[in-house]
Amino acid sequence: MKKFEEKTISSKFIYKGRIITLLVDEVKLPNGKTGNREIIKHPGAVAIIAITEDNKIILVEQYRKALERSLIEIPAGKMEQGEAPEATALRELEEETGYTTNSLRYIQSFATSPGFADEVIHVYFADNLVQVEEKAALDEDEFVELMHVSLEEMGDLIANKQVYDAKTAFAYLWLKDYLK
Amino acid sequence: MKKFEEKTISSKFIYKGRIITLLVDEVKLPNGKTGNREIIKHPGAVAIIAITEDNKIILVEQYRKALERSLIEIPAGKMEQGEAPEATALRELEEETGYTTNSLRYIQSFATSPGFADEVIHVYFADNLVQVEEKAALDEDEFVELMHVSLEEMGDLIANKQVYDAKTAFAYLWLKDYLK
Repeated sequence: MKKFEEKTISSKFIYKGRIITLLVDEVKLPNGKTGNREIIKHPGAVAIIAITEDNKIILVEQYRKALERSLIEIPAGKMEQGEAPEATALRELEEETGYTTNSLRYIQSFATSPGFADEVIHVYFADNLVQVEEKAALDEDEFVELMHVSLEEMGDLIANKQVYDAKTAFAYLWLKDYLK
Repeated sequence: MKKFEEKTISSKFIYKGRIITLLVDEVKLPNGKTGNREIIKHPGAVAIIAITEDNKIILVEQYRKALERSLIEIPAGKMEQGEAPEATALRELEEETGYTTNSLRYIQSFATSPGFADEVIHVYFADNLVQVEEKAALDEDEFVELMHVSLEEMGDLIANKQVYDAKTAFAYLWLKDYLK
């Protein structure tokens, strides 16, 4: 998968934050000319399509500063250094929803914004949920509200744009097929 | 949609590139404490689920420097300043595939990485495709290869991770439902 490869001539470090790092690479294009690519490095993330015994989907509402609004999304979070995606999935599920499971199934991974970021999100499916006795704490700057919705209600949340992110849009279509 | 709103205390400009801008905002969290949010500003993008008369899906392969690999994706591109999403959709469809259409249908919009970016992608569906006589030029740093695949072949491309981005993963599930 190296078709039209753009070899790095030089890489300029711009910024390293808590979550993202910004680089600007000068590259050699396939036609021999040079170009610049702005690149965001991100540790990667995990998202969980989680359903209860009565096929209610677990969603979390949280404020998304980049968009200056709150969004209703499937539970998700970024991977800690050295953490396997399955471990992230179970950790985030517990932190954000208070549930855990012994049946976690890998669905699919995808890059969220391949034009400028290396973020990949790994999507899992969880059912057979069990409430944990003492819920793990959220990150100290994280505030979420839990919802349990039917597939039809999730469709309504998409129609009125309260659900408005790629992974949750994917999850809805996946569930529509799975629950039919 | 302001639940758990994080008011901006100050916004620090870090970098403005050709495509993205990086800011770091200091915010007041819902519990009264302060926190920092790294924010990528992006002009927004459009993607097109385009099918031929015989239900072949039009995909483009291109190198994605951030991931250091090529990806096979549905046609897409970022919006120019002041450009309506429908205009971007028709422009990108023509530039990347050589097709145009008089039947463009809006499907859905979603944020790609709400945790750190404001990028929203607007997804359209196009059929009744007509080859344009003189294809519009790609951007000068853009190199793509066109593919026409069946739904089944698209499933194989996902299984072997040649298709590996969120909008195209969404497009596959959408088409699975649409073409059934």
